[in-house]
Amino acid sequence: MKRIGVLTSGGDSPGMNAAVRAVVRKAIFHEVEVFGVYYGYQGLLNGNIQRLEAGDVGDIIQRGGTKLYSARCEEFKSDEGQMRAIEQLKKHGIEGLVVIGGDGSYRGAMALTEKGFPCVGVPGTIDNDIPGTDYTIGFDTALNTIIEAIDKIRDTATSHERTFIIEVMGRDAGDLALWAGLAGGAETILIPEVDFDMDDMIDRLQKGKKRGKKHSIIIVAEGVMSGNKLAEMMHGKMELETRVSVLGHIQRGGSPTGRDRVLGSLFGARALEVLIEGTGGRAIGMKNHQVVDYDMTKAFLGEHDTDMSLYKLSKELSI
Amino acid sequence: MKRIGVLTSGGDSPGMNAAVRAVVRKAIFHEVEVFGVYYGYQGLLNGNIQRLEAGDVGDIIQRGGTKLYSARCEEFKSDEGQMRAIEQLKKHGIEGLVVIGGDGSYRGAMALTEKGFPCVGVPGTIDNDIPGTDYTIGFDTALNTIIEAIDKIRDTATSHERTFIIEVMGRDAGDLALWAGLAGGAETILIPEVDFDMDDMIDRLQKGKKRGKKHSIIIVAEGVMSGNKLAEMMHGKMELETRVSVLGHIQRGGSPTGRDRVLGSLFGARALEVLIEGTGGRAIGMKNHQVVDYDMTKAFLGEHDTDMSLYKLSKELSI
Amino acid sequence: MKRIGVLTSGGDSPGMNAAVRAVVRKAIFHEVEVFGVYYGYQGLLNGNIQRLEAGDVGDIIQRGGTKLYSARCEEFKSDEGQMRAIEQLKKHGIEGLVVIGGDGSYRGAMALTEKGFPCVGVPGTIDNDIPGTDYTIGFDTALNTIIEAIDKIRDTATSHERTFIIEVMGRDAGDLALWAGLAGGAETILIPEVDFDMDDMIDRLQKGKKRGKKHSIIIVAEGVMSGNKLAEMMHGKMELETRVSVLGHIQRGGSPTGRDRVLGSLFGARALEVLIEGTGGRAIGMKNHQVVDYDMTKAFLGEHDTDMSLYKLSKELSI
Amino acid sequence: MKRIGVLTSGGDSPGMNAAVRAVVRKAIFHEVEVFGVYYGYQGLLNGNIQRLEAGDVGDIIQRGGTKLYSARCEEFKSDEGQMRAIEQLKKHGIEGLVVIGGDGSYRGAMALTEKGFPCVGVPGTIDNDIPGTDYTIGFDTALNTIIEAIDKIRDTATSHERTFIIEVMGRDAGDLALWAGLAGGAETILIPEVDFDMDDMIDRLQKGKKRGKKHSIIIVAEGVMSGNKLAEMMHGKMELETRVSVLGHIQRGGSPTGRDRVLGSLFGARALEVLIEGTGGRAIGMKNHQVVDYDMTKAFLGEHDTDMSLYKLSKELSI
Repeated sequence: MKRIGVLTSGGDSPGMNAAVRAVVRKAIFHEVEVFGVYYGYQGLLNGNIQRLEAGDVGDIIQRGGTKLYSARCEEFKSDEGQMRAIEQLKKHGIEGLVVIGGDGSYRGAMALTEKGFPCVGVPGTIDNDIPGTDYTIGFDTALNTIIEAIDKIRDTATSHERTFIIEVMGRDAGDLALWAGLAGGAETILIPEVDFDMDDMIDRLQKGKKRGKKHSIIIVAEGVMSGNKLAEMMHGKMELETRVSVLGHIQRGGSPTGRDRVLGSLFGARALEVLIEGTGGRAIGMKNHQVVDYDMTKAFLGEHDTDMSLYKLSKELSI
Repeated sequence: MKRIGVLTSGGDSPGMNAAVRAVVRKAIFHEVEVFGVYYGYQGLLNGNIQRLEAGDVGDIIQRGGTKLYSARCEEFKSDEGQMRAIEQLKKHGIEGLVVIGGDGSYRGAMALTEKGFPCVGVPGTIDNDIPGTDYTIGFDTALNTIIEAIDKIRDTATSHERTFIIEVMGRDAGDLALWAGLAGGAETILIPEVDFDMDDMIDRLQKGKKRGKKHSIIIVAEGVMSGNKLAEMMHGKMELETRVSVLGHIQRGGSPTGRDRVLGSLFGARALEVLIEGTGGRAIGMKNHQVVDYDMTKAFLGEHDTDMSLYKLSKELSI
Repeated sequence: MKRIGVLTSGGDSPGMNAAVRAVVRKAIFHEVEVFGVYYGYQGLLNGNIQRLEAGDVGDIIQRGGTKLYSARCEEFKSDEGQMRAIEQLKKHGIEGLVVIGGDGSYRGAMALTEKGFPCVGVPGTIDNDIPGTDYTIGFDTALNTIIEAIDKIRDTATSHERTFIIEVMGRDAGDLALWAGLAGGAETILIPEVDFDMDDMIDRLQKGKKRGKKHSIIIVAEGVMSGNKLAEMMHGKMELETRVSVLGHIQRGGSPTGRDRVLGSLFGARALEVLIEGTGGRAIGMKNHQVVDYDMTKAFLGEHDTDMSLYKLSKELSI
Repeated sequence: MKRIGVLTSGGDSPGMNAAVRAVVRKAIFHEVEVFGVYYGYQGLLNGNIQRLEAGDVGDIIQRGGTKLYSARCEEFKSDEGQMRAIEQLKKHGIEGLVVIGGDGSYRGAMALTEKGFPCVGVPGTIDNDIPGTDYTIGFDTALNTIIEAIDKIRDTATSHERTFIIEVMGRDAGDLALWAGLAGGAETILIPEVDFDMDDMIDRLQKGKKRGKKHSIIIVAEGVMSGNKLAEMMHGKMELETRVSVLGHIQRGGSPTGRDRVLGSLFGARALEVLIEGTGGRAIGMKNHQVVDYDMTKAFLGEHDTDMSLYKLSKELSI
């Protein structure tokens, strides 16, 4: 390949810019031309495509969000849309595409690959919910953003001896809730992977209170239920003053952590190599401390493994 | 006076610990004994009172929350409760009290003073809504917490070209919304001091869109309406994808900024001096760059001046 | 005036971008055209001058450094250089100039004004050493950067029970050392405004040790002496394990705090108004909580007042 | 075992408190009593040993430094010292010890084990230089501290178009320099694992300058040479204005990142289990994404593997 493209798609995540930078500069290192596709698949359909030089991705490794922007695109989900996308790419002489995003973005990339246009996927999502990789780009930053919020809320929880419910992102995967809960010293962590047991939770809270525990922090992944709903349900069961904090969109932003920048750099560089040396349909990941590439279909058809030993440990330590 | 007490009351705010430390150490400097009253007025009634030495307030200047804890107390609002409080204080030989908190805390302190027990108030609240002082302890930290959140949300707003509504604290005073909105480059700032004008807001947003503005941030103080309600109201008026973020309790916590630590130190030290040299009923504040003390009743009967020139400036700059 | 210029000069400071943004947008608000002069006076001589629109200063309020860049320039110090600068400005039809920087930058601005080209100065320097204003843009951010460093170092100082010497910026003014020392709970603060007294310092350290103080933090402004020199001098006088930390250039950078962004916005907007309504030679500042403008010569000929009450207070509280 | 001890030794690192908390609470979970040994091996010799309950390690997971303090101890290095240490432990009925620290601490722990007193080691050091584990507790936090410093310095480097030399910790291992350099977008990274080649460095800098690179950041691990020495050497070779920043002790402190808290929790919990189920002499680590335990001698006799693929990648991306 002599000319490739790169786009970001789906929800933005910190470290995406590091991945874009790595794709671009690694390509230049291999004397391959790179084009940035702006606004994800929508921009691809619109032909929003521009040549990127080394300097165009300078001074972005430390920035949150994505310099290539992102957008949702219904039209691209159809065969027709995908064919038009390939036309646009060919019009610019582009022979392969690196797609940075979550599982929805991967489906699109796989569709293009199956239609003969090679794509490679890089896992960019804060949710850490992509099968086949131990970590996704943005997870570590979001984790630290949540922990800073927990630390702040703990100041008030301690000063007022209150119970706080903190709702964090995670529709299907509890990774953020689990890691943040363990790292934040939360008393209770509710994740989609474990059936919610109100009685057990109430029981733990009351035991803690008896032992003299003066405040309590409950982390709930949005996939279990909303923080407000949980508070309502608890009020019927137990006399306890609770406050709810919904962290929301701050979890997606911020300057990426060191790890997310390194991960983005490693993944972007590997994606470029896998793309120019192969026929696409591969996803990049970190598995057992190694950068790997694997069949992209596994990334949206497989199951993400949440590390349940963390869940067990958190229960043992939050006594 | 040879023996004084100090308590924190109402919502906690970053920098309260700096004020407690200053009261304690300045007292020791003047060879006055200090007692910490734990859990605010409730603890006062319960006799939760302990001697504090210089070392007891070591290593707390950088901590959020309040080392003396806080609590609400209905009982203290009655004359009887207040008389009992004075008994508790006298039982410990305490002759005067520094109360660190918001306007509700000041009312209690004034009631004690009027019953013959001298109290001095230190403004500790993130809302910056206490008449007679340009700044309260905690405002600067909360401002920076909000700005960090805006910066994070802007990453996503920019990447996805969306409009974000960010709800911040401020029931009666728009200071937090105003400063944070100006500093965060928000396009629109809604504060309780200004009548809400939906048409004007929609007009500005649409003009911005026409000029090519790709994302927009609206800051709304909780005293105007909730972020969610605002989003609902807007949806009827304009086609616009909005996201709502309610910052909530993270605004109260966190390690205090340099300014809040300095302010807490200055206020605490001055409060101690005003207390031991006078007959109470005074509030401490910063006015025109000077530490001042003034009649405490002014602090809850007077009106807080929001700096409306910031509001005007923000409108001119957020084009 | 229908066309004005803006430049940043001298050491960069966080919040300069907020000031540039305010100058530009306030000018547009008044239907005045604005040109950015890049690379300070050097760029002015080189004609590195470009039109700025509202969008050109979008998304910069949160960035450290200066989007207009800065540079030193020997040539500009001569009459000849200054005449050439005025020629460049006139060539672009520019009738007035806002100069954002420290006292060196002000001298240049005053020289231009005296040659008939109106300039207004905005105080941008982390040192807070400009006479006539209580605060300069960047001081608050640098203060918080230093405090975060002190907090980090305190972790180690506490864990190992060591004495740390922390050297901070401040050649002639001790403001940064003083505020940071007070806010960081430093035991000793050495500033250029106070004659260094080794015996007094050793005495305090030894008394602290006797009282059981397990670690100690000494803040020294670079204008007093280097941290390493201080350590050497102490070793001859006292048995004490000291570590030195020179904070250096991290003090200049970072995303500006809320206060520096608001200050930059207020100052920039006022500078524009003072420039277009007057004949130059004015400096902008904050005095007693009011934005003011005053004779620019005062800013480099006058004396900066360091708030020595903070010095006294810090001695009383760091027992 | 019914009673065990835990100590921290050597340089403190963020996350040590999470490890202490995990040892204590996991022990309580297994109905084993825990004693904290304060001030490392020195405190052990002095009998500075206290019972720890679950509440004693509450509210410490987010704190930098070590709640158990640390100290150096020459006396413990002798056989005699070690025998006395074992006596102290036996006097308190303690049957095993978890030692959290670096390789020096491990040597002591192994000596005790060889004398019949079972010890297990937990890798706590920011340097990431312990053979047998991919990560040590504190590395991730230090990495992020360095990156924040680089981001700040970059503001000035960009604004003034200068070359900055940033000296980071790492006497024998270049991990911190390497990760931080890659994540910070440094143009040049000098680590002890690679022979220093001045000509190559100058060559890269000059090529960059020719391509229009306006500023440059050089990261040098202290094990290669000091930042100041590097600057001196460069001045003889190339006309270039350089600034040096020695990050120093801020790298050790700060609230631990999410990852370091999770790592500390996992390691502490595993150490407790390995200790009570075995005969000591084991070190805990993370290897290929799994928590492992291995022969402790390997940790100080083996060789640490620096990931040289990061070095290569950084050269390719920093064009």
